[in-house]
Amino acid sequence: MRDNIMRMQERMNALGVRLRPHAKTSKCIPVVRAQLEAGGQGITVSTLKEAEVFFAAGIADIVYAVGIDAAKLPRALALRRSGCDLRIVTDSVAGVRAIASFGAAQAEAFEVWIEVDVDGHRSGIPPDGAELLTVGRALHDGGMRVGGVLAHAGASYEAHEPEALRAIAEAERAGTVRAADRLREAGLPCPVVSVGSTPTAFSARRLDGVTEVRAGVYVFFDLVMHNVGVCRMDEIALSVLTTVIGHQEEKGWAIVDAGWMAMSRDRGTREQQRDFGYGQVCDEHGAPIDGYLLASANQEHGIVCCSERVDRGIAARFPIGTRLRILPNHTCATAAQHPEFRAMLANGEVETWPRFYGW
Amino acid sequence: MRDNIMRMQERMNALGVRLRPHAKTSKCIPVVRAQLEAGGQGITVSTLKEAEVFFAAGIADIVYAVGIDAAKLPRALALRRSGCDLRIVTDSVAGVRAIASFGAAQAEAFEVWIEVDVDGHRSGIPPDGAELLTVGRALHDGGMRVGGVLAHAGASYEAHEPEALRAIAEAERAGTVRAADRLREAGLPCPVVSVGSTPTAFSARRLDGVTEVRAGVYVFFDLVMHNVGVCRMDEIALSVLTTVIGHQEEKGWAIVDAGWMAMSRDRGTREQQRDFGYGQVCDEHGAPIDGYLLASANQEHGIVCCSERVDRGIAARFPIGTRLRILPNHTCATAAQHPEFRAMLANGEVETWPRFYGW
Repeated sequence: MRDNIMRMQERMNALGVRLRPHAKTSKCIPVVRAQLEAGGQGITVSTLKEAEVFFAAGIADIVYAVGIDAAKLPRALALRRSGCDLRIVTDSVAGVRAIASFGAAQAEAFEVWIEVDVDGHRSGIPPDGAELLTVGRALHDGGMRVGGVLAHAGASYEAHEPEALRAIAEAERAGTVRAADRLREAGLPCPVVSVGSTPTAFSARRLDGVTEVRAGVYVFFDLVMHNVGVCRMDEIALSVLTTVIGHQEEKGWAIVDAGWMAMSRDRGTREQQRDFGYGQVCDEHGAPIDGYLLASANQEHGIVCCSERVDRGIAARFPIGTRLRILPNHTCATAAQHPEFRAMLANGEVETWPRFYGW
Repeated sequence: MRDNIMRMQERMNALGVRLRPHAKTSKCIPVVRAQLEAGGQGITVSTLKEAEVFFAAGIADIVYAVGIDAAKLPRALALRRSGCDLRIVTDSVAGVRAIASFGAAQAEAFEVWIEVDVDGHRSGIPPDGAELLTVGRALHDGGMRVGGVLAHAGASYEAHEPEALRAIAEAERAGTVRAADRLREAGLPCPVVSVGSTPTAFSARRLDGVTEVRAGVYVFFDLVMHNVGVCRMDEIALSVLTTVIGHQEEKGWAIVDAGWMAMSRDRGTREQQRDFGYGQVCDEHGAPIDGYLLASANQEHGIVCCSERVDRGIAARFPIGTRLRILPNHTCATAAQHPEFRAMLANGEVETWPRFYGW
């Protein structure tokens, strides 16, 4: 984990942009502290609960990067009134109206970032969309502060060729900078130009005009990122430790006590060039055992088997009581199933790091 | 929820068997209490944490229905020493050896149920397998108590024709009774014959020889069970309340603040005859809106769209701020994402019922 944090931080330092880690991946104070100690500046969150927990832990520079529902504005206001420099996001005139109306009533000039859609993947206004200036002006005229523009090239998760990834990263950069330029040309402020995803952060050749990068999954990596091509398997820092509890020898199955409750139902590698089932099987020390996958999962049972043949010797290979580690498809989803991490320190000790969930 | 509990309880009463609800679905004390108050006798759990929490809440009759890992035996012993009538499960001679060795060292005669495999779905010994008697004898000779046999017809989740479901239920019954008979013929005790899954519980025509049924998902039901054919959509008692936070009108998308973190990544209807994406969209009061699905999901974003056509009027249909309810594919998985339920009482009030997670 510390190597992954350093790798991303050094890359951002070399590209001359701030790194704003996304706390949604870990929802864990010691992990986020390590990211900030390495040089991260502020955090990104996906829920107001994350904002509340991390602000209580002393982190004040926070972007809530999901378009805000008006019903959540009182919680956002409470955070700001407590001293949290919480920034919120919108991508529509209707969203601006709700924020400006609540802000005016509460005498709070919210800082709002406008979401830009660089790849048709999810939310946001296209960089050349007419609504961009309408939203910017409505914020400004409504007494709110236009803090910047924000984009996320989610389509990068679907690529795996370096050249394609570089093109997606450049489209993310160019589109977001273009949106910022249009706002500025219209006389509106746009101090922040925020882009990011783990794949584009590792693929961008230059980030001219960008002021910060947001990324989350890089802190642990996972099999999806391995397939995208931005990490090696031995860089995956999160695994689920499980124990063999039975076999069906004639089918070549070892049954383990990690099912989808431990791994999550995420099957992110299913549509990629290499499908890892519910995860790559490793020995207890984390060395991948080539060809063995967590092929299927019930709530608390997982089925380990060889993906290439029926291994009728599986009971001898993995006797009852054998401890295995499973590398996950998607660390954000797998980590979310667990109330705590068992952190393996450099000195060999193991610490328990609590994480939280909910909204 | 109360209707679902009564429906299952009345069916089990009519078939003359005890119902042992599976607490893994709710992991929530008020829900499990309602199941026991309706007539349920004892509970099934999928983790020792469930056993510990429910025992602390006053429920002593507990079956831990996942083959036990020897490393968990000290926790099982602690529960028994505290007065919990915890039963454990195994399906192998290696498993018996670990239990008997630990039990002998601790002077504890664990009550063990032998898992039977009635459909090749997961764990267990086939009803006619030679290992059944070997395991039974090893338990008995090792000083442990053979409490019964236990089976789960997991293959029933893959069926949807009533006749096929009846056949699976009968195979589950007959196979488990056959295993019990073989143990008894060999001079071993086998007081309990435990079967169960929600689909087979609703499909069995008779349960001769069975002493108890275990079922979990029926308490809330879900879209998978709807597709299996054992509930109507208006019997699904669990939904995720979400709010529209944006649109991509030209694509016919409404973006909501429920993504996979709120729904889980479960896509259980994907291989069924009707694929509901990440869930069926309903209005705020729970009435399904025909043709509208939560088609895709990121961590905290969901995309609602019409499954039949591109609805370019979606922003007018579901304006920003619209509250929608999403019915889940799989309630066990969706519920697990939430720290609490908001329970709608008959008198119109809403209570918060905490639930727990972890192991």
